[in-house]
Amino acid sequence: MMATLGAEIAAVRSGEVEIVLPFAAGILQQHDFIHAGAVAAIADTACGFAALTVMPREAAVLTTEFKINLLAPAKGERLRAIGRVVRGGKKLVITLGEVFAEEGSARKQVALITATMMVVDTGTGLRD
Amino acid sequence: MMATLGAEIAAVRSGEVEIVLPFAAGILQQHDFIHAGAVAAIADTACGFAALTVMPREAAVLTTEFKINLLAPAKGERLRAIGRVVRGGKKLVITLGEVFAEEGSARKQVALITATMMVVDTGTGLRD
Amino acid sequence: MMATLGAEIAAVRSGEVEIVLPFAAGILQQHDFIHAGAVAAIADTACGFAALTVMPREAAVLTTEFKINLLAPAKGERLRAIGRVVRGGKKLVITLGEVFAEEGSARKQVALITATMMVVDTGTGLRD
Amino acid sequence: MMATLGAEIAAVRSGEVEIVLPFAAGILQQHDFIHAGAVAAIADTACGFAALTVMPREAAVLTTEFKINLLAPAKGERLRAIGRVVRGGKKLVITLGEVFAEEGSARKQVALITATMMVVDTGTGLRD
Repeated sequence: MMATLGAEIAAVRSGEVEIVLPFAAGILQQHDFIHAGAVAAIADTACGFAALTVMPREAAVLTTEFKINLLAPAKGERLRAIGRVVRGGKKLVITLGEVFAEEGSARKQVALITATMMVVDTGTGLRD
Repeated sequence: MMATLGAEIAAVRSGEVEIVLPFAAGILQQHDFIHAGAVAAIADTACGFAALTVMPREAAVLTTEFKINLLAPAKGERLRAIGRVVRGGKKLVITLGEVFAEEGSARKQVALITATMMVVDTGTGLRD
Repeated sequence: MMATLGAEIAAVRSGEVEIVLPFAAGILQQHDFIHAGAVAAIADTACGFAALTVMPREAAVLTTEFKINLLAPAKGERLRAIGRVVRGGKKLVITLGEVFAEEGSARKQVALITATMMVVDTGTGLRD
Repeated sequence: MMATLGAEIAAVRSGEVEIVLPFAAGILQQHDFIHAGAVAAIADTACGFAALTVMPREAAVLTTEFKINLLAPAKGERLRAIGRVVRGGKKLVITLGEVFAEEGSARKQVALITATMMVVDTGTGLRD
């Protein structure tokens, strides 16, 4: 999905991951802004990867829910999603993410996400 | 975005819209389920289109926020998102949506979404 | 908390619980509608109790997150919150709830909630 | 409602408001933690008051939706909710809030909220 959208991981720190999505014709909605679904996809992915940075190597995570506020139209050269762990736990990891539209050196926040990641038992065969 | 994902409108009724998304390799996440972002994209779009069915012809809507609970892995032949208007208003339209995974005649609910659509003044040049 | 607000359980069915909250001066906000916090409290409680109806007798649940859309001002003789289980699971139970304002035999929906309940290991000593 | 719970405004800055709620028997749930509804009530109120600090004096706000993640049991001497404006607008104000449990000088985050406030036309007679 990230490859279909054209998104790439831009930074990985403990408890924090950045994903960048360049503007492209295939991810627009009917007003030529980047579709809310694409904004949500990179925000959710940044949060899920941030959760993985605080988990044991063999663990996997699945998003159980997220809520996103869309603050402004998503337009510019690229989007940058930054996901951070707010609270880790053995069963659930709670994350907070921000998405910015960037144009040259200017950036504007376009979305705010909170997401719950469920830690998946590796006995299920799921592995990130 | 809907074209990129391969989604199509399957039904339009007053206050209710269905969107179908066939399973495809480009929309999977790392566990080979359909990516939460794609599930969210069709759920949000079904809700937005449902809101449009109760608006004057010249009005447009923008999603201001949505929250999605992912109930089960999204796998099967296709996903079907059904968006419904819960409450219409002059400024905001509140919607509720369900996403089902379908395999032959069987179907299982995989997501639940609530979304707020902001009615956009057509004087801004936005038009759906 | 339910006693402080004056709320009472009005019905319990498998997977569904109703809670009624009579209008009272102590639960109003500054515009004399029932405070969003009180609306949320009974909606969350109805959802949590609904989750308990599908759990083993010794299990307990804790709300891990909820999202509420406030559809209309909460005013009338009483509020009725109806919580339903959308999907049960061993770790998480996903619920959907509606809150109605009632005046005589008339009723109007004033809120929509989705909530995730975490099933708590009874080994922790928590018990509902 | 704030008086019923025993909550008080502790700080008001431009775009940010703090509310403190002392521990009291009447706001507990069945496990003797402060009820999620009380946590949500002060978080929502802090966010709403934060929105008011960036509005014209004659404007009023109503919560249209909020989502809260409950991160840890709410226990201690008091709760402190801090609400902040993330994005102001003429129609909607988006806010982010955190709730902390405090015990002496120690504090632990127990909740994370995002809320949308609708700016109310003062022609309706609503006034904060």
